[in-house]
Amino acid sequence: MLIYTVKQLADLVSGVVEGDGGRQVSGVAPVDRAGPDDVTFVVNERYAERLEQSRVGACLIAPGIRVDANGAALIRVDNPELALSTVLELFHPSPQLEPAVHPTAVLGHGVQLGERVWIGPFVTVQAGVTIGSGTQIWAQCYIGAGASIGENCRIGPSCTIGHGVQVGDRVRLNPGVRLGVDGFGYASGPDGLTKIPQVGGCIIGDDVEIGANSTIDRGSLGDTIVGDRTKIDNLVHVAHNVVIGSHCVIVAQVGLAGSVHVGDGVQLGGQAGIIGHITIGAGARIAGQAGVIGDVPAGGVYSGYPARPHRQSLRASAATLQLPQLLQRLRELERK
Amino acid sequence: MLIYTVKQLADLVSGVVEGDGGRQVSGVAPVDRAGPDDVTFVVNERYAERLEQSRVGACLIAPGIRVDANGAALIRVDNPELALSTVLELFHPSPQLEPAVHPTAVLGHGVQLGERVWIGPFVTVQAGVTIGSGTQIWAQCYIGAGASIGENCRIGPSCTIGHGVQVGDRVRLNPGVRLGVDGFGYASGPDGLTKIPQVGGCIIGDDVEIGANSTIDRGSLGDTIVGDRTKIDNLVHVAHNVVIGSHCVIVAQVGLAGSVHVGDGVQLGGQAGIIGHITIGAGARIAGQAGVIGDVPAGGVYSGYPARPHRQSLRASAATLQLPQLLQRLRELERK
Amino acid sequence: MLIYTVKQLADLVSGVVEGDGGRQVSGVAPVDRAGPDDVTFVVNERYAERLEQSRVGACLIAPGIRVDANGAALIRVDNPELALSTVLELFHPSPQLEPAVHPTAVLGHGVQLGERVWIGPFVTVQAGVTIGSGTQIWAQCYIGAGASIGENCRIGPSCTIGHGVQVGDRVRLNPGVRLGVDGFGYASGPDGLTKIPQVGGCIIGDDVEIGANSTIDRGSLGDTIVGDRTKIDNLVHVAHNVVIGSHCVIVAQVGLAGSVHVGDGVQLGGQAGIIGHITIGAGARIAGQAGVIGDVPAGGVYSGYPARPHRQSLRASAATLQLPQLLQRLRELERK
Repeated sequence: MLIYTVKQLADLVSGVVEGDGGRQVSGVAPVDRAGPDDVTFVVNERYAERLEQSRVGACLIAPGIRVDANGAALIRVDNPELALSTVLELFHPSPQLEPAVHPTAVLGHGVQLGERVWIGPFVTVQAGVTIGSGTQIWAQCYIGAGASIGENCRIGPSCTIGHGVQVGDRVRLNPGVRLGVDGFGYASGPDGLTKIPQVGGCIIGDDVEIGANSTIDRGSLGDTIVGDRTKIDNLVHVAHNVVIGSHCVIVAQVGLAGSVHVGDGVQLGGQAGIIGHITIGAGARIAGQAGVIGDVPAGGVYSGYPARPHRQSLRASAATLQLPQLLQRLRELERK
Repeated sequence: MLIYTVKQLADLVSGVVEGDGGRQVSGVAPVDRAGPDDVTFVVNERYAERLEQSRVGACLIAPGIRVDANGAALIRVDNPELALSTVLELFHPSPQLEPAVHPTAVLGHGVQLGERVWIGPFVTVQAGVTIGSGTQIWAQCYIGAGASIGENCRIGPSCTIGHGVQVGDRVRLNPGVRLGVDGFGYASGPDGLTKIPQVGGCIIGDDVEIGANSTIDRGSLGDTIVGDRTKIDNLVHVAHNVVIGSHCVIVAQVGLAGSVHVGDGVQLGGQAGIIGHITIGAGARIAGQAGVIGDVPAGGVYSGYPARPHRQSLRASAATLQLPQLLQRLRELERK
Repeated sequence: MLIYTVKQLADLVSGVVEGDGGRQVSGVAPVDRAGPDDVTFVVNERYAERLEQSRVGACLIAPGIRVDANGAALIRVDNPELALSTVLELFHPSPQLEPAVHPTAVLGHGVQLGERVWIGPFVTVQAGVTIGSGTQIWAQCYIGAGASIGENCRIGPSCTIGHGVQVGDRVRLNPGVRLGVDGFGYASGPDGLTKIPQVGGCIIGDDVEIGANSTIDRGSLGDTIVGDRTKIDNLVHVAHNVVIGSHCVIVAQVGLAGSVHVGDGVQLGGQAGIIGHITIGAGARIAGQAGVIGDVPAGGVYSGYPARPHRQSLRASAATLQLPQLLQRLRELERK
């Protein structure tokens, strides 16, 4: 069991102790479950109340929040969530896998492995693949010919990385991610739809995380690109030739049609759908389930179907509720 | 070939025979395909008509439905669908797999297997996993360290069960299910979003079924929980710290954002989306594609975006259709 | 490196050369990336402008488009996209896999393989499966007992094909597709929902392509059917007993509930949802995110939720935007 003093944790996260810095904690827990041996965290006033009713050992908490600590040692930090992230890594270190290639793994010709690479059971790595130092490829993954994966990545179980796909450093793929899939491109021919060979690339930046069972197509001729530090949730669809900037947040079940351009720092709410060939400007925020059928300016906040500026959507939505009553009033006027 | 008399089937489902109980049937088929050797089923008047035009051998049918059996033997049962389920199991028994661990499977240290466990080819079972008696783990599954799986489960091909996940008894996972995936949790740091280690649990109750390629995140600190007998369809997303009650029905492509609480007996229609940190009261029914952005009371019936009580949505939706005409009437009034 | 003259390409696609037919090209690229050694394509006037600013070697272009070729050789063809498809296959031939069964693959009793079949690492093929000539089964696939797969198919990595599923010729499955999954069928019993055994079939026609991580259920009693030449994108859900015609286009994340009938040549936009037991007539087009809750006539163009004829949806949607202002006008009238 790992044990740290409150003072040690405070030093680690550059926090200031209020109370007993010598107190020892051995775990992290949410405030309503935390006990005397746990450190918890409070990000706003609402949770401060729960802290007062708890018997936690210590609490990461923003400077401005007033609270009766009820005996807990407080660690004041500007960004309790970021501090929580650090403390969690301390108590839950990533499992250290003995660098090795499992004897069942099948590696093609000319595969280049960096140092401390770990490859699990039943992994298939095709010819000419490059895997950077410290990267883990978990069980049952498939990596196509000529793909390159950077350093310190964690490719979860059952992922598929198509031929020639380029993955940056410190990328995390959750289970079942499909990268570099053939896009949905057909030409109308005499016998119906005829497949247009999809020969473009798929480039994933550094520090990207992609959720379970999400799918990212390769470009048709050009490339599909996901920028650095962008985070993609589960079951998201990214079509061919989509270009996503850096620092974006794409929530579960979003769908991006072909050739969409997404600027830096964009946030797309869950189940939002973006029609093909449009641009979402940098910093824009699209609400969950929105259906975006035209360009969105930088910094725009859009919602609804078809997606419009959020205030406009709200007003229209509120007015819709008044409609039956409005019809009534109109009828009365007409009678007069 | 399995052959049963109508009387034998009637006894099995506690039904009452009308017609020739000695008649033999050897299969089950839908009414428009069933022949003289088949038993079919009729749940309502609409299908009764089709029965009259068919040449089926026998029919499971509710007591109240009047029908000219056209020579078929009828088996009157209160719940024809439930009876159908029993009869189907009779004619289509689950394949009996010779209990065995396939020689290609890779088992870690301290794995505990109950009796009659079947493990297919290319399965990876990490250290410390417990698998209950009678459970089948199909080909290409990955089971993370310390996970526990109950008795008589059927884990379909290519499923991923994360470390420490707890699965109850008689659970069925269809192919490609991901349990205990890292949730979508990040803190804003100086370099952009920083991953908050997801260290919570993922607990699946007894008699749960989960559809193909659905994803269920582990908790961030606490647990993600799916209650007993809840049924989840394909491509559903359940985020971290979601708590789903028992006896729920969650149709395909639903998305549940983080920390949602779903009461017992809730029904969520296909593609519905539920925003984070809200509560859906017990017995509530949410229509397909609804976007729920606030609490729903127990027993509530909600639809639309944003989701409102279904009657209110219907009225607003109907009124919206009259809008162009309403505008016209308003213009006329103004002219006067 | 493959090199062809413009004349050779023109002959291949039955095109007419304008300019230097002897010019040599060695690759295909989009117009804004193409150089002097590349052939590109232009389908409409908008891209013609870009051609004028480029330095491409050759260009597939429709007869009607006027353009200053800027030195490029033009290949006039009626259908530039179809010609592109042909030229791409020339420059990017499908990798020729040495016909072989990988030594790690596990094949059950009575498996029948045609000529030139290729089976990758860690594939599981259960008893009685038939695989046609020229078909490739990529790594980590699972094929259930008694399934049959036609000729010249390409079953991508990590696909699951359930027992008894029938797949036609020249079918392409992208990674993670699940065919013949148990449908979402339960009867209400005394202990809650009871599974109705799903014993129907799943039949996929010729020349079908299915996108990554899509799921297609088997029928409950009857069959789930996908017609010839129908194309299905990523993360699509097709429930039990759905019958889809031929030449359909089903875009990503669409959901089709149980027993839906889809006519030939239907187009379903991304994230559209179709309620169970309805019919979409031949040639109908459903907009992205539409929620279809009733039959759609042949040739109908529907959008919105609930889906209505597109013009009606557009008018209602436009009127909704005027609502706040309309309320204002009504108030003024009332004051008078």
